[in-house]
Amino acid sequence: MKTYLECIPCFVRQAHDALRQVTNDEELMHRVLRRVLVASAEFKMDLTPPEMAQAIHRIIREETGSPDPYAEIKAKSTAVALRLAEEARPMINGAIDPFKMALRFSIAGNIMDFALTSKWDQMNLSSFLDDTRLKELDESGVEALRDAVGAAQNIFFLGDNAGEAVFDRLLIEQMPHAKVTYAVKGSPVINDVTLKDALDSGLDQVAELMENGNDAPGTILSLCPPAFQKRFAEADLVIAKGQANYETLSESDRPLFFLTQVKCPVIGRDMDKPVGSWIVQYHAGEAR
Amino acid sequence: MKTYLECIPCFVRQAHDALRQVTNDEELMHRVLRRVLVASAEFKMDLTPPEMAQAIHRIIREETGSPDPYAEIKAKSTAVALRLAEEARPMINGAIDPFKMALRFSIAGNIMDFALTSKWDQMNLSSFLDDTRLKELDESGVEALRDAVGAAQNIFFLGDNAGEAVFDRLLIEQMPHAKVTYAVKGSPVINDVTLKDALDSGLDQVAELMENGNDAPGTILSLCPPAFQKRFAEADLVIAKGQANYETLSESDRPLFFLTQVKCPVIGRDMDKPVGSWIVQYHAGEAR
Repeated sequence: MKTYLECIPCFVRQAHDALRQVTNDEELMHRVLRRVLVASAEFKMDLTPPEMAQAIHRIIREETGSPDPYAEIKAKSTAVALRLAEEARPMINGAIDPFKMALRFSIAGNIMDFALTSKWDQMNLSSFLDDTRLKELDESGVEALRDAVGAAQNIFFLGDNAGEAVFDRLLIEQMPHAKVTYAVKGSPVINDVTLKDALDSGLDQVAELMENGNDAPGTILSLCPPAFQKRFAEADLVIAKGQANYETLSESDRPLFFLTQVKCPVIGRDMDKPVGSWIVQYHAGEAR
Repeated sequence: MKTYLECIPCFVRQAHDALRQVTNDEELMHRVLRRVLVASAEFKMDLTPPEMAQAIHRIIREETGSPDPYAEIKAKSTAVALRLAEEARPMINGAIDPFKMALRFSIAGNIMDFALTSKWDQMNLSSFLDDTRLKELDESGVEALRDAVGAAQNIFFLGDNAGEAVFDRLLIEQMPHAKVTYAVKGSPVINDVTLKDALDSGLDQVAELMENGNDAPGTILSLCPPAFQKRFAEADLVIAKGQANYETLSESDRPLFFLTQVKCPVIGRDMDKPVGSWIVQYHAGEAR
């Protein structure tokens, strides 16, 4: 997905909100914001929004001197998610359709996205569980994904955020006969899941973990090492989680499934789905 | 009021929203946004937010080649407000306290602010009238203003937006024994009221009109001509309408009254009032 004009004010707002998460130093925040403004002015609009986010968060890491400013937030997200997963697992195992219930939890987990809002830890956790059970899903998308999982010998699952990864594990647990590789970021960016976060979430118990070799949100294949690109190309099934993976792979040549919540009006317009939708969408790839 | 860090993302968003009101040309919008980003990066935070808005809207006028890009929007606001005023006037005349009811309409009219939102013309007009009747007002502020109006021989009323100005007229009609001067912008900026807009609103029938000689929102006294500064200094009573007048005059030495709605969380924090409040506030001036 290309960058739209509406993304520009959002870059600046996200940079501001992200800074508030990691520092109280007004002078530092102003210095970073000034650099973000100039970088936003120079940004090429045919790039994807995560390429701008990559630039912004490099500036934040450089100026704060912290290689992983969200480490604490990610640890907290993972801890909350692990606690929720204990309530989720019996719900999944007791469901008429455990795969679909686990899929619901994986998409529900996508709300743990600090790039958009810092309010998730104030949310009512019981309403989180209700939403997970009741939210409308595209049934044909669910069935297409179920069939694809059943037919695949190897699955490449592109992770999104820390915390959310715990819920992805619940879904991967419902894919017992396929070999799953779970892709994580090569180094920290925002609250995206890294190798450490995936290990903290126990993903290594259900999947092979593979780093993507870079610090951009989503999956910018040209920045990923050859082994990663090969795995992406050769997997029987690719599952791309979260908005940033949609933004970076919506024009991919290969078939894949997008699993995400629509949290941004620009992405909603690009997908032709209202904000708030939960997406299980097959992307044909070759059709483009 | 100085500029806060939160104002920076808001400048960019406002520039984007303002551009959408006046053009569909994506390339032009991008060119303006790039200039706004650079200007925002260079902006000095000890200036007031309207000084940034002044710079932004100069860029918009320059790039669009239009001296008054909001002319049509302002004309429409004035027309809607004139229609509403016909319903308001009998409500005011029939009220137990006509002054207070007129004051309510003047503050209600402050919602006609396109810098913040473009949605006002979709609002339910009958809910506008209900809000006007029922909204909580600081009674001590109302009484202080009533007393000040009663005691003043000459009143300097600093206008805000087109459309809103029609409702200011309703309030001025309830100040029969004082001489009122109504201040307007020297040249167009956003939807702020200019001499033409004030004439279209019939303000000249109830007040002397005085241009402030510049194109900044609010009232930046150092940019106003000596005659304007003199009137401001020597008036028995100054009434400053709208958020931008608060932003530019909140540190003024002279006593005055602020009349506005709180539409912005940063201004709300500065005023110690929640967003959505209607303000009738005496500013002592010499206390600073």
